[in-house]
Amino acid sequence: MMEDLFAERIQGVPRSFIREILKASVNPEVISFAGGLPNPDFFPVKEIEAATSAVFKRYGPKILQYSNSEGDLELREFISSRYMLKKGIDIPVENIIITNGSQQGIDLLAKVFLNSGDSVLIEEPGYLGAIQSLSLYQPVFRPVPVGDTGMDIAALERASKSSAAKLLYMVPTFQNPSGITYSNENRRQVAAVAAENKFILIEDDPYGELRFSGEHANSFYTYLPEQTVLLGSFSKIVAPGFRLGWIAAPEWISEKLIVAKQAADLHTSSFTQKIIVEFLQANDLDQHISKIIEVYGAQCKAMIEAIGRQFPEDISITTPDGGMFLWGRLPEGRCSMTLFEEALKEKVVFVPGDPFYTGKGSQNSFRLNYSCVDAATIEEGVGRLTKAIEHFL
Amino acid sequence: MMEDLFAERIQGVPRSFIREILKASVNPEVISFAGGLPNPDFFPVKEIEAATSAVFKRYGPKILQYSNSEGDLELREFISSRYMLKKGIDIPVENIIITNGSQQGIDLLAKVFLNSGDSVLIEEPGYLGAIQSLSLYQPVFRPVPVGDTGMDIAALERASKSSAAKLLYMVPTFQNPSGITYSNENRRQVAAVAAENKFILIEDDPYGELRFSGEHANSFYTYLPEQTVLLGSFSKIVAPGFRLGWIAAPEWISEKLIVAKQAADLHTSSFTQKIIVEFLQANDLDQHISKIIEVYGAQCKAMIEAIGRQFPEDISITTPDGGMFLWGRLPEGRCSMTLFEEALKEKVVFVPGDPFYTGKGSQNSFRLNYSCVDAATIEEGVGRLTKAIEHFL
Repeated sequence: MMEDLFAERIQGVPRSFIREILKASVNPEVISFAGGLPNPDFFPVKEIEAATSAVFKRYGPKILQYSNSEGDLELREFISSRYMLKKGIDIPVENIIITNGSQQGIDLLAKVFLNSGDSVLIEEPGYLGAIQSLSLYQPVFRPVPVGDTGMDIAALERASKSSAAKLLYMVPTFQNPSGITYSNENRRQVAAVAAENKFILIEDDPYGELRFSGEHANSFYTYLPEQTVLLGSFSKIVAPGFRLGWIAAPEWISEKLIVAKQAADLHTSSFTQKIIVEFLQANDLDQHISKIIEVYGAQCKAMIEAIGRQFPEDISITTPDGGMFLWGRLPEGRCSMTLFEEALKEKVVFVPGDPFYTGKGSQNSFRLNYSCVDAATIEEGVGRLTKAIEHFL
Repeated sequence: MMEDLFAERIQGVPRSFIREILKASVNPEVISFAGGLPNPDFFPVKEIEAATSAVFKRYGPKILQYSNSEGDLELREFISSRYMLKKGIDIPVENIIITNGSQQGIDLLAKVFLNSGDSVLIEEPGYLGAIQSLSLYQPVFRPVPVGDTGMDIAALERASKSSAAKLLYMVPTFQNPSGITYSNENRRQVAAVAAENKFILIEDDPYGELRFSGEHANSFYTYLPEQTVLLGSFSKIVAPGFRLGWIAAPEWISEKLIVAKQAADLHTSSFTQKIIVEFLQANDLDQHISKIIEVYGAQCKAMIEAIGRQFPEDISITTPDGGMFLWGRLPEGRCSMTLFEEALKEKVVFVPGDPFYTGKGSQNSFRLNYSCVDAATIEEGVGRLTKAIEHFL
């Protein structure tokens, strides 16, 4: 059998569950709370078109040539100064590497750190794209539960002691999938455990700028700079189609990441990098983001209110201060994957909890996305979902 | 030491030697035969600018949204029909995956096939980017010498028998670094060894369309379709800054590659993919390529003639029918890395042979690039190199 030639890491890896769900939601009669997409109504397409023209005018053919693996210097300078402006942290330009979305950042970090069998701490529930990407390096996952104010510190300590973990992967602000945010006190405690047990903190922060209530949370870099790696992305604040993200890592790590980046694809498109640079220089990013926040905030509120009015009382939901997701829980022992089948009959879809857990099925939790649905659609969709839940319970 | 956290695969991997050489050639007084860059004078920047405008007009914001992991359907259809047109091979659209340059194709194939310690057959000399990318998966390299008409078949058979190899990596047409092309008879023999020993043929073909003399060579797909993976790229025929390439693989392999691609970075930029589609629909690619071929052919001829007139007789060079590189050899036992130091004093640079070999230093061979230097510069540069060689020998 030629299939024997495959590497161990890829054998038995299923195609993404999300792909299958997205196929179901192609039917225009189906209301989808399943996606994880930013709202295309707020892609600054006119401004990006103008920025593109400016790039052609300013650079001509040389913008289409090969470029360096670290990425565009001006873009990295922008990112560095925005870290100072928004988070008060001093990240040298040399420590920033441009990647194809922050997804590539996860892959490169796994490549640089993980031998097969190494322990990785990860939020439970956690971002399924990270679970998929990390899985290909065959780690042993040590999941640590997260609640409304962050990570379960006792559980983190136990998981850290049980084996020498190398990495802790987190989306600590407006988490995907749950929408929760770690408090500053929780962050300080997580960092203390990392300092003691000498593992790397990966702070993936694609949604942090999309805050519609509550107060700024500190970066882990504030607490433990030499062990913190930051992942960032333009996907949710500008547009995802460029596939532009970045890694900011201490020098001892970033020099290895550059080797891995070069081996992976030489460099990220120089052309799209310059378009973003031009866009950022010619426009007020904060003003642009404020429009997104206003709409996402209103849609989040509408969804929470519709759920409050319609869902049975024994279904709990989170109340995010930003981002794109709500997280719901059915009564203990009930399976959201089964609810999904009922919901599909009512022409509404969401993402059942299972793919956000490492190797545990039959979860009672589920993710709802509100970024791409207006208030009327939310009202109607929550109504359909309520019917499905009532049939189901 | 925190450095103990790194994975075995990355420990001791040096930064690319080429990077260091390219730094040396930043000095405008230095003539560089070291680069591997296509000539930016032939990037169709006006046509790409027009294609970009058309994309904004036709698609609006939706071209900036997330997209599918396989890549743009129209682009994959173009690639499929061009395989039929140019090579007479029938590659289904479903078997084509768009990647960030063909470099990412190498990385994804390694990810899908290689466990640490697996054997990989590779041309000697071979493409250094492939050596770097594959190295991160910790294979055992089994180098097989290539000469003027292709691979040493007896050596390939010996290497195949000595351990069960999974992959054979080749640039069989206008090879990087040597410029040679495998004959059809040689390809048939290589495919026969692969069929018998059940390894995958990776045919990386970034230069195949840049033929200025000689006759079309068959794809390995002609001989062994179920074990051949094709890598392709728009970098040398349109422009590299988009980072657009592709993998065409049998279905049993491509379904695994899609999982790996999704885990690596979700998908390649939907925006740049559509720009290339629009460019290819609105322009005659063959006509565009004919301009590149004319110039590269003339520059190759000028370099071979200048070398014939100026170099000492005991230095041999290859005579390519296309592509971007010549390969020279100093007398046995002389080290081209030492010549590099002499050449730098004369303000001319090239790439010494060492990085094209897996783990062997002190080679007597060297690579010369002619794509980015006009006839006068070639004459002057070969003169300087001749001086360096005369001092050195």
